[in-house]
Parts: sequence; structure tokens; C-alpha cells
Amino acid sequence: MKRRSVAIALVHHPVLDRRGDRVTTAVTNLDIHDLARTSRTYDVDRVYVVTPLAEQQQLVARILDHWRQGHGAVYNPKRAEALKLVAVVTDLQEALADWQECSGQEPWPVLTGASTTGGISFRRCRELLGEKALLLVLGTGWGLAPDLFEQKWTVLEPIVGAGDDYNHLPVRSAAAIMLDRLLGATEI
Amino acid sequence: MKRRSVAIALVHHPVLDRRGDRVTTAVTNLDIHDLARTSRTYDVDRVYVVTPLAEQQQLVARILDHWRQGHGAVYNPKRAEALKLVAVVTDLQEALADWQECSGQEPWPVLTGASTTGGISFRRCRELLGEKALLLVLGTGWGLAPDLFEQKWTVLEPIVGAGDDYNHLPVRSAAAIMLDRLLGATEI
Repeated sequence: MKRRSVAIALVHHPVLDRRGDRVTTAVTNLDIHDLARTSRTYDVDRVYVVTPLAEQQQLVARILDHWRQGHGAVYNPKRAEALKLVAVVTDLQEALADWQECSGQEPWPVLTGASTTGGISFRRCRELLGEKALLLVLGTGWGLAPDLFEQKWTVLEPIVGAGDDYNHLPVRSAAAIMLDRLLGATEI
Repeated sequence: MKRRSVAIALVHHPVLDRRGDRVTTAVTNLDIHDLARTSRTYDVDRVYVVTPLAEQQQLVARILDHWRQGHGAVYNPKRAEALKLVAVVTDLQEALADWQECSGQEPWPVLTGASTTGGISFRRCRELLGEKALLLVLGTGWGLAPDLFEQKWTVLEPIVGAGDDYNHLPVRSAAAIMLDRLLGATEI
């Protein structure tokens, strides 16, 4: 089988807040660690932390330095291995450009959200891996802003859980479920 | 179909630390929130936070009060709904006793870990839901202590990710993947 090229983008702008306003969320240390560990476990190639704020970019760079080269790398080499996947970018365009260069393939951005409609199924998305370099786009806060959905990018079906109306997964958990569905070696 | 009774136990003692020593880990606010949100999304009945330390139990009680009855409940009612599932217990025996009373069925503890061997498959575990009241037992730190595996309880196969030797999922992410595999409505 052709190698599957998969990257993740964790978007901090443009996203919605709980009132539905378009905002920039703060980067959290834990999101970065969790996404990196899960991504490394599922053999994901890149994790893009997307924020336009210079101070936030510097914060992420400091966290990454600590764990990749500093005391953290000695304390926990496995964590260093995971955090090597992480790159900080200003916007999705920069992520797509880097991902194209890194994968050597046309990048394929796929938007995600808890209330998306008309998206492709996980099964179909999994089938298309190997043909395209997937960039799975995840929103922090209350999800990706609507304008991201106006540029005709592919949308992934939502995770519906048990199927009732409650659907408030942490982005860390949603990412883990998506990667397991798309890349998991275990047949369910 | 018979209703599926599923609960989770997040164990802080006895677990291992990075050196393989038997320890009690600290409860973290984020584990509780993430497990509660994921559990509510997948229609899990109970989330047991297992710690023998009275101060830690009080800390969890304060967190739960804030979000279930305090300012948090007004700020974010959806979070309150998720955190209603959480109960603090001293040990797994207490969790099993409560779970038996709560489910009205014989409780079925199933141990999990990144390096378990000889366990039942996710598929088999999913088939058995409805017949037994599952208590999925997750370890914090570097995983459940070996003595828990000496009492002949059922063990679940590990999540293997992409199948190489790196397997360091955060417990929050592992729980999400397990619940999706066992309870998810979407056919993959």
C-alpha cells in the first residue's frame, strides 16, 4: 500500500466562542502535548498549531524547545519524539504550503466540526488516503468559523457519539477518535 | 436492543510512575472535564474518579460543585450535564459496588493498558455489552499497577495506533478511542 500522508491543523483563528462570535483562542500547552502524542501514535506526519498572534507563536516555540532540546527531552524522550511533529504557523495557507513541501503531494484540506452537514464519510476519507496528502483541520473554542466553510474545501462528517443530541467532545478527544477511524490498524 | 450499561473508572492508585514505581497520581481538572464530556457524548452512565487521598477527593468535590451547582452551571449548562456523571470513590471496590447498585446488573470490570496481552478484542467487548454492566478501568500516570492484573479480571486488547512501537496516548485520548470503538453509532 502507498504510504498515507496525514497532517493535522489545530486552528486558533478564525474560530467561534460560546456566543458565536469570531475570535482568536489562546494556545494551550495540553492541546499541543495531547495532539502530538496521539499523532505520533497513529504515525501522523505533521501537527500544525495555527495562530496569527506573535506572542502565542513564541509561547509555543518555547514549549517545543523545552521538550525537544531542553530538560524535557532528557526527562521524557518519548515526549520529545512526539513534539518533533509540531510546527507553528500563522494561518492555514502557511500550513498548506508547508504540508505540500513536506509531503511532496497536493495537500487536501478537510474541515471538521461537531455540526457539519453534507460531509464525506470517515470510510470514504480513509479510502482516499494514499492518493492525497490529508490535512485534517480542527477548530478550538466552539469550532471553526463559518467563513472557512465557504471556500469549497472538503468537509468530514461529524462524530455523532451515541447518536443523541449531546455532542461536546474536547478537541483533543475528537482528534483521537478521527485518527483512530482514519488510520487505526485494529479492525472493529 | 437492550440498553448498554457502561461506566468508566479513572484510577489514580495503584498506578505506575515513569520509573515503574507504584504510586498515587494527582487528580487533574482536565481529565475530569474531558472524560465527562466524552462520556456524556457516548451516553456512558458513570465516571468514577478513583483516589484514596481525602484531600484529592475534596478537590474533585469542589470542582464538581462549581460546575454542577455554582457559577459554572450558569456559564456552561452543557458542561454541568456532563459533570453530573462523575462520582469520586476511594477504590475500585467502591466503584464496583456503586455501579452494581446504579446499573442493577452484575458489574463487569475490564482492565485497560497500552501493553496488555491476551486480552479480549474490542469487537468481542462490544458484543458483550447489554449482557453485562461494563466498568472500563483506565490508569493515569504510566498505567495500572500489575497487582490489578492478578485478580483474573477481563483485560481489553491495547489500542495499537498505526501499529509501530510508539504507543503513548494520553489517557483522555485513549478513553475517547475506546468509547468510540465500543459505543460509536457510526459504522466504519
